[in-house]
Amino acid sequence: MKTNHQWLIAARPSGAAKESDFKWQEAPVAAPADGQVLVRTVYLSLDPSNRVWMNEADSYLPALALGDVMRGGAIGIVEESRQAGFAPGDLVQGVFGWQQYAAIPGPALSKLPKGLPVPTTAFFGLLGHIGLTAYFGLLDLCHPKPGETLVVSTAAGAVGSLVGQIGKIKGCRVVGLTGSDEKCRWIKDDLGFDAAINYKKENVPESLRRHCPDGIDIYFDNVGGEILEAVLNLVNLKARISVCGMISGYNSDNSEPGPSNLAMLIIKRVRMEGFICTDYLDRAQEAFTEIIGWFLAGKLKYRVDVVQGLENAPRALRKLFDGSNTGKLIIQVSAE
Amino acid sequence: MKTNHQWLIAARPSGAAKESDFKWQEAPVAAPADGQVLVRTVYLSLDPSNRVWMNEADSYLPALALGDVMRGGAIGIVEESRQAGFAPGDLVQGVFGWQQYAAIPGPALSKLPKGLPVPTTAFFGLLGHIGLTAYFGLLDLCHPKPGETLVVSTAAGAVGSLVGQIGKIKGCRVVGLTGSDEKCRWIKDDLGFDAAINYKKENVPESLRRHCPDGIDIYFDNVGGEILEAVLNLVNLKARISVCGMISGYNSDNSEPGPSNLAMLIIKRVRMEGFICTDYLDRAQEAFTEIIGWFLAGKLKYRVDVVQGLENAPRALRKLFDGSNTGKLIIQVSAE
Repeated sequence: MKTNHQWLIAARPSGAAKESDFKWQEAPVAAPADGQVLVRTVYLSLDPSNRVWMNEADSYLPALALGDVMRGGAIGIVEESRQAGFAPGDLVQGVFGWQQYAAIPGPALSKLPKGLPVPTTAFFGLLGHIGLTAYFGLLDLCHPKPGETLVVSTAAGAVGSLVGQIGKIKGCRVVGLTGSDEKCRWIKDDLGFDAAINYKKENVPESLRRHCPDGIDIYFDNVGGEILEAVLNLVNLKARISVCGMISGYNSDNSEPGPSNLAMLIIKRVRMEGFICTDYLDRAQEAFTEIIGWFLAGKLKYRVDVVQGLENAPRALRKLFDGSNTGKLIIQVSAE
Repeated sequence: MKTNHQWLIAARPSGAAKESDFKWQEAPVAAPADGQVLVRTVYLSLDPSNRVWMNEADSYLPALALGDVMRGGAIGIVEESRQAGFAPGDLVQGVFGWQQYAAIPGPALSKLPKGLPVPTTAFFGLLGHIGLTAYFGLLDLCHPKPGETLVVSTAAGAVGSLVGQIGKIKGCRVVGLTGSDEKCRWIKDDLGFDAAINYKKENVPESLRRHCPDGIDIYFDNVGGEILEAVLNLVNLKARISVCGMISGYNSDNSEPGPSNLAMLIIKRVRMEGFICTDYLDRAQEAFTEIIGWFLAGKLKYRVDVVQGLENAPRALRKLFDGSNTGKLIIQVSAE
């Protein structure tokens, strides 16, 4: 009988999640019930929302209980199937949780196409929820037009780096905010952003003003907080703000105040709209077809930051909040 | 030669505008230049935006200089015209400022229809910018559907009371927030709101939760601040927030923090959009025709709070911020 290693939620984090908020457990691998598929986790996706899911309150998904296996999106290989349509060896994506094996109801799994001209990690870095988020959050909510100025926060992150590049494809002037000089260089020199701001070193309101001489038409917001406030002071008439994340507040016990200048929404007739990529699952094909096309044409680049070993997941999660990851953060749990 | 009394801006207010922030001045009535129309002010509209216009910073209109005549919307009668299309006796609307007479370029004036089955004050209380604001801010931005829950702040105010009644016409459950028991009675018993909350006496989060058992689908926001925060905690999936005003912050020197729970925009996929009624000037006819129809059918009521005498304008302005006005606040400057 095979052993399943799992990370459970042991405590509600106060501030950043610590390793002691998780519990490492060994359990036997469960046999799949009728209608279920047993999958072996290959890659686990680490995302800012992992931290949100550790809270006691419901988010857009129900809260987890203490003692539950930590929730997480993953890609894996079918080991055993008791659901028609899935066979051993299939590559599948779903919410397996932080564990080596999971028995998942068939309808909760997506089969991934084989033979695409992209590596498996592209399903996290370029396609999957990252691609849906960047593609629809920018195009469906903000309708970028050539010549408009687009600002992106966490611009070297998985979503932000795609958003900026799609903005360039659409003819925008793209200004990205990120947290290191290396990341600034990457988004400018490799990805083609027009300007990059190191928000840890620069005065953000001043730098934004300098790099957005014609104001800001679109803001793809991954962070909320002070950067949102600085952006609001520079918005143009009929600007659009896509609210994708508010990572600046995810680790705080006491919620941080919002921007004090929301009246700019009135003065400039701004639309600010939140979304979640799963709202667009039924249009995934449309996004992925176009993204793969851009990727193969050399117009889109991505990078992944692969950490080896499920046992390192709690430590690796912190990289998302201290800015030390470069590209989509992934745990490799087993061999492809 | 006739005398023109005027209120000038003497100082930038700190907090609420005081009478000493204005200067009362006598000047001769200017003869209209070519292309101008000399109007006698009959009714002056007092609105929260008057306070915004006293600030040093530009808003959606350029800032005024110290020593300028205070800006204000008004209705008046043409005394002398040097612009084709206007004749003495015509009833006109425009931004005359806080003065008894104004020489205004013809294109900046709107001629009001005579013989409508509504009193002249209806051009402020029901039609004009109030009607445009309520009608398009609710219908165009929020698309209310029967059975949805609509929350309105400053619900006994000129805009709020119209918004709530239009919400009822559209089949919504309407919950209003206002600042006195008398106003609560008025919006419930006379205007037909489903529930009224006295935000000065009640615990707003608790009362909202009680009166919105199915959550909030639409919020027509006139105030921002803590009420916006309480509403955000109760929004339903795909809720719409029409941002019409942020009066809670207009008098503060230090801008107040925004709501700490803007992440609800993501969790519930909420759209929050600012607007200004003048964006809809080209569709005014559509709104006014429908509003007059509803008024004549007894489905819409309004009330005006008419203060006599231009000399009382600075004192009267405070009523908008301490909640002591009931209905659209108007200064009667001269006889109809």
